[in-house]
Amino acid sequence: MKTILITGAAGWLGGMLRDQLNGWVETLRLSDIGDLGQTRPGEELVPCELGDYDGVMRLVDGVDGIVHLGGQSIEGEFETIVNANLRGCYHIFEAARKHGKPRILFASSNHAIGFHERETRLDGDALHRPDSLYGVSKAFGENLARYYYDKFGVESVSVRIGSCFEKPKDRRMLATWLSPSDFVAMVKAVFEAPRTGATVLYGASANREQWWDNGHAAFLGWKPNDSSEQFRAEVEGATPVPDPEDPAVRYQGGSFAAAGHFEDREPGS
Amino acid sequence: MKTILITGAAGWLGGMLRDQLNGWVETLRLSDIGDLGQTRPGEELVPCELGDYDGVMRLVDGVDGIVHLGGQSIEGEFETIVNANLRGCYHIFEAARKHGKPRILFASSNHAIGFHERETRLDGDALHRPDSLYGVSKAFGENLARYYYDKFGVESVSVRIGSCFEKPKDRRMLATWLSPSDFVAMVKAVFEAPRTGATVLYGASANREQWWDNGHAAFLGWKPNDSSEQFRAEVEGATPVPDPEDPAVRYQGGSFAAAGHFEDREPGS
Amino acid sequence: MKTILITGAAGWLGGMLRDQLNGWVETLRLSDIGDLGQTRPGEELVPCELGDYDGVMRLVDGVDGIVHLGGQSIEGEFETIVNANLRGCYHIFEAARKHGKPRILFASSNHAIGFHERETRLDGDALHRPDSLYGVSKAFGENLARYYYDKFGVESVSVRIGSCFEKPKDRRMLATWLSPSDFVAMVKAVFEAPRTGATVLYGASANREQWWDNGHAAFLGWKPNDSSEQFRAEVEGATPVPDPEDPAVRYQGGSFAAAGHFEDREPGS
Amino acid sequence: MKTILITGAAGWLGGMLRDQLNGWVETLRLSDIGDLGQTRPGEELVPCELGDYDGVMRLVDGVDGIVHLGGQSIEGEFETIVNANLRGCYHIFEAARKHGKPRILFASSNHAIGFHERETRLDGDALHRPDSLYGVSKAFGENLARYYYDKFGVESVSVRIGSCFEKPKDRRMLATWLSPSDFVAMVKAVFEAPRTGATVLYGASANREQWWDNGHAAFLGWKPNDSSEQFRAEVEGATPVPDPEDPAVRYQGGSFAAAGHFEDREPGS
Amino acid sequence: MKTILITGAAGWLGGMLRDQLNGWVETLRLSDIGDLGQTRPGEELVPCELGDYDGVMRLVDGVDGIVHLGGQSIEGEFETIVNANLRGCYHIFEAARKHGKPRILFASSNHAIGFHERETRLDGDALHRPDSLYGVSKAFGENLARYYYDKFGVESVSVRIGSCFEKPKDRRMLATWLSPSDFVAMVKAVFEAPRTGATVLYGASANREQWWDNGHAAFLGWKPNDSSEQFRAEVEGATPVPDPEDPAVRYQGGSFAAAGHFEDREPGS
Amino acid sequence: MKTILITGAAGWLGGMLRDQLNGWVETLRLSDIGDLGQTRPGEELVPCELGDYDGVMRLVDGVDGIVHLGGQSIEGEFETIVNANLRGCYHIFEAARKHGKPRILFASSNHAIGFHERETRLDGDALHRPDSLYGVSKAFGENLARYYYDKFGVESVSVRIGSCFEKPKDRRMLATWLSPSDFVAMVKAVFEAPRTGATVLYGASANREQWWDNGHAAFLGWKPNDSSEQFRAEVEGATPVPDPEDPAVRYQGGSFAAAGHFEDREPGS
Repeated sequence: MKTILITGAAGWLGGMLRDQLNGWVETLRLSDIGDLGQTRPGEELVPCELGDYDGVMRLVDGVDGIVHLGGQSIEGEFETIVNANLRGCYHIFEAARKHGKPRILFASSNHAIGFHERETRLDGDALHRPDSLYGVSKAFGENLARYYYDKFGVESVSVRIGSCFEKPKDRRMLATWLSPSDFVAMVKAVFEAPRTGATVLYGASANREQWWDNGHAAFLGWKPNDSSEQFRAEVEGATPVPDPEDPAVRYQGGSFAAAGHFEDREPGS
Repeated sequence: MKTILITGAAGWLGGMLRDQLNGWVETLRLSDIGDLGQTRPGEELVPCELGDYDGVMRLVDGVDGIVHLGGQSIEGEFETIVNANLRGCYHIFEAARKHGKPRILFASSNHAIGFHERETRLDGDALHRPDSLYGVSKAFGENLARYYYDKFGVESVSVRIGSCFEKPKDRRMLATWLSPSDFVAMVKAVFEAPRTGATVLYGASANREQWWDNGHAAFLGWKPNDSSEQFRAEVEGATPVPDPEDPAVRYQGGSFAAAGHFEDREPGS
Repeated sequence: MKTILITGAAGWLGGMLRDQLNGWVETLRLSDIGDLGQTRPGEELVPCELGDYDGVMRLVDGVDGIVHLGGQSIEGEFETIVNANLRGCYHIFEAARKHGKPRILFASSNHAIGFHERETRLDGDALHRPDSLYGVSKAFGENLARYYYDKFGVESVSVRIGSCFEKPKDRRMLATWLSPSDFVAMVKAVFEAPRTGATVLYGASANREQWWDNGHAAFLGWKPNDSSEQFRAEVEGATPVPDPEDPAVRYQGGSFAAAGHFEDREPGS
Repeated sequence: MKTILITGAAGWLGGMLRDQLNGWVETLRLSDIGDLGQTRPGEELVPCELGDYDGVMRLVDGVDGIVHLGGQSIEGEFETIVNANLRGCYHIFEAARKHGKPRILFASSNHAIGFHERETRLDGDALHRPDSLYGVSKAFGENLARYYYDKFGVESVSVRIGSCFEKPKDRRMLATWLSPSDFVAMVKAVFEAPRTGATVLYGASANREQWWDNGHAAFLGWKPNDSSEQFRAEVEGATPVPDPEDPAVRYQGGSFAAAGHFEDREPGS
Repeated sequence: MKTILITGAAGWLGGMLRDQLNGWVETLRLSDIGDLGQTRPGEELVPCELGDYDGVMRLVDGVDGIVHLGGQSIEGEFETIVNANLRGCYHIFEAARKHGKPRILFASSNHAIGFHERETRLDGDALHRPDSLYGVSKAFGENLARYYYDKFGVESVSVRIGSCFEKPKDRRMLATWLSPSDFVAMVKAVFEAPRTGATVLYGASANREQWWDNGHAAFLGWKPNDSSEQFRAEVEGATPVPDPEDPAVRYQGGSFAAAGHFEDREPGS
Repeated sequence: MKTILITGAAGWLGGMLRDQLNGWVETLRLSDIGDLGQTRPGEELVPCELGDYDGVMRLVDGVDGIVHLGGQSIEGEFETIVNANLRGCYHIFEAARKHGKPRILFASSNHAIGFHERETRLDGDALHRPDSLYGVSKAFGENLARYYYDKFGVESVSVRIGSCFEKPKDRRMLATWLSPSDFVAMVKAVFEAPRTGATVLYGASANREQWWDNGHAAFLGWKPNDSSEQFRAEVEGATPVPDPEDPAVRYQGGSFAAAGHFEDREPGS
């Protein structure tokens, strides 16, 4: 592995990986539409808009692996999602097909399956039940990944990320938290595995509360080491006791599943 | 049921339903970007491009049910599919949400699951394995359908249509054929059922060869009556013996699964 | 088979079987707390209250098979159900254990699984989800049946009867209707089968709408022949179009699932 | 959580919880028909017979959670079980419905599934296979729990307790042992979880031999920490090598599954 | 299809196929160690011992399909089974690999799964549970079939034949009977199907009692048309009422499952 | 446990067990066709060819348990496998039936399921998909084990051994490695368990990459303690990066699945 491309590298997740993966491969090729700051040793900065077909083709040319974080990461207007997530994702997979078939880690989301109830244990056979247009777009990306593997042999791991932050911000994240350190280990495992096929992987740390079963993907060799438990007292002290019948508690997607339609929301919500 | 909207009404399937459903409801509202011909009694003609948000809102206003056939029905360039199938499908579901939540029969396709092998019996829990960008777009529509039901209560049946023609055209269609008469009965059943939730239904007649199990949807009360068997001799006489290892035989999507990427194909293929 | 006992023989179902099974075995032993009328040839009338341990022991002594219809057949006060359905059912199985282990057809009910949704296809592995105290009592009877087979070898078939009437009375019964003729054939099949173990069987005719899959019990050799379809026009003409979101439509138990607690109901409801 | 009710508080399990949970909530309301001794700080003693409807209504009024241990905990005559376990359990759930729907931890038992074989791994989808009338009554309680949640929203966790004692007493308990400390942690987890729905949970420590899979309930956040392994040498030294074909070894319910009918047993067995 | 080889052609099944398939293909190549009688038009007689490697190679050379009926068809001494069924089956598959990979219909047997209980519905995922050394040898043949497809692309259908006779001979065969006519249709379907992969198929007619589910193989296009029901009265009149606890009734393999070890049996049993 | 027989005791695995199990039971009876060296305290040396019926009968007489390692442990000519693995395995089970039914640990192999893909998580319900004639013979042994338990009550554990060596030799073994120490603990667990029935167990250590799920066999009380992770750097340093599309990577059987037919191979491969 000489060169890994990270899209969405100006975001929080991307910046974290930029720091943590430096030195793991020869070159990190970093891309975003936002400001990527200064080039550091071992980096290539390649600004690119994911909706730009030709730009993405050039972006992917010459890389050995792709961490595709770029796109819209919350609910948004349909046309925003079309461009950033549907078109963007297609361009990435299509570029991979044309440029040596580098393996792809696709940052999918729990919101692709967010309308399953909390009491439902999900594994690799769970059907999509998106909780938002954003979630629908992530399911689209997973289906693209499956298609590009079945027809063209482009390998991928679609990670249904729970909540990857420095620490859990609310009670739901006590279950869904993916520690930055566990995510870094996952990225390495995905690219070091002898083979991935087109696999779906849930992205949560070894928290006390567990919703997802990664048994089907144990062949990848990734296991989380961290737990949200150290933050429990702090989080529970700062947040009210939840109502079990609240849709944000009932459904795995949390507030995404509970929210009304995008256009009916209050500004800022 | 007073008014049913049929999108894609200028196509073969749409025209067939236009003929067969006349009189079943008070009014058939027919829409397409192609020529719909003359208005007949019991019809309303409303030309509309599915990518036109406002147009689709007006189109859906006042209907009691929707048969959504419109869009691109074969493999095509990604941007064609974005407009016709992704955007168009979103507009239809969004319009339904805003206009009284008429139930929707969404014409999905076997190509949403076309990379499953012929030996794999599929039922309502089958994962998407699209065989084309077209198939990816149909899976997208099914996921939208699930989302609009889970969050907004818009009921639907997503029909993974096999091959709906006057008669089967090749050996594969001996298994996948859906007779026009069975499809008409299905449309009626979908709109007459007390409840559909968001259900996936396979669309094949009672052919001798069966790939799909509709047991999960037996509550809808639709059962096919026709069989392709009457056409077997004719079809087998006109086509060569298939090679079991040909991807077009191995995978359920047939030639869609076997074909290379759209842009690499011969013109006209 | 010389003697078959029918409990609850003064009820509608019991009376129907009394007529139809006469002559099939040498003697029908008929029991109820209600008026059984006059003894006819081939009959023994043995009035018995199911809560009476000694009475039930005598009732069962000497029979070769039992059709256990007796008990409370609708929702009721808990103590009524305790006596008629819990204690009564226990007495029947216990009497069978002590008196030669005649095979038992236990009239269970769809209300033992009535909180499954209509879109959920149920088979022999479906978990109990009772929709009423009555349904809880039927699940109790099924568990007793399993226990008496596992420990004592008392064979049984627990029939989750849909709606056994002359004809369907409402739209839900178009799916759940069990024709009297199909029920009679089922009774014969249960007692003629070489072996039943402790099997759960769904009791519905070959209606167009199907909720239940009896594949696991196909070894019994019972298949329904009738269909509610002949009554569809009449039933739909006499009843309003259902609301898909009505709990009585959403859940398989129908009005049982939709009803509030027994003690909160209007008299007569 | 201000007040938790513990029924059966004079028993061994109840007394253990009484000691261990003191201080965890403001008030432990303790109830039994046996002698509860003296009131200690943080306690309310409310003697109550579970067959007494009015008494149980008063008992439950004002509590925030219920640990329902009360009732018959071994095989017994049917009428004893009717009163203590069927009627008693109904009164508890009915009282919860009427008094603010406090969450319930229901002490079910492995004897509700005791006729499954040792080689059968059970999870949340396991069917009831009771090994005794006692086991039938526990299955009844679980079904009540499901019903009260489905219809009235009363949340619960039904714990199929293995063997909760200070230490395992025989070889079977090396597999089924639930340490007191793990049980205390479970009680806390059940009442601290954001949501439980109506969940079945197996109650065994992290023993070397495992029969049950709690994956479906991992969302609750309970994991056992203890193991019976420290007692293995002692237990194996004190007990003979088991016969694999002994029903008490073959079936998960152990001696309950192997025992004959209650009325045929030796006194004291 | 020009030439089909039938091994075991001197047996009852083989003779029946010899009659019925004459004219369906150009040439039937018939083989056995027993007397094959006179050559008829459209036939080639090639006597061959299945344990003879070179002989089998010659036997298979030039055929387009194989119906492998040859071998020991009842329980026997291990060494008899080694030669006729293990070695013989290996020779057939190995010869197919070397000679153009003709598709193979392998006559497996219900005795490969005969220790499943009658109440267990089996499908394509059923594990082997042989009821005899004979059954073990049939499972061996099925595993060879799977291996030769997975590694070498030799297609096959392994038919777990129930009881193929002119008519059912006992009560068990009312469930397991495969009519000669249905078997002939199956042979044709297997060789006419566009693709078989390595499929397991149960061989029973459309009898009233059904133990096996061929849904997984519905893609082959074979459905039975006959039923044993016409023979029920005759069979039941001639045979005693079965004991449900008799192992010959309890297990699907019937008397094979009930019988003791071969060497302990009475001569002629 | 007084006497345990180890077949194949002159091989690497056998020798390792010979060392490690000395003292665990009173007597190790050691058998092989190869040189067993000198008798040590606590040992009996009984040279025996597994194809010799009478010899195996004598060998097994008087033992309390059998670890059956003997036979051909790699791909070989069919007749070699017939004698060593088919006949040999039959003799061992048959001898056990006749001599007190000692429990058997049968050294099966991952090659019995080697044509499942790496991405497929296998458990106790996995179907056989052998990758070699050797794998077919191991599946045969497992089926014999099932048969001898179902009919005669001979208990066994069939261990699908991954790769049991001092340390992993290639990248595949990072997933499949079974440490000698874990294997020794497994042998003890198998013979100390109260009951085994006829169970299939996967033999791999607690490696980071996991292909197999032993949940169904957790009742046995065996859990691995070692991991291949300590050898990763060494192994990866010494071997090239694998090609994900190489059949030796794609299929669980590794090079066995990738290899051509035995007779076509280079000498020594």
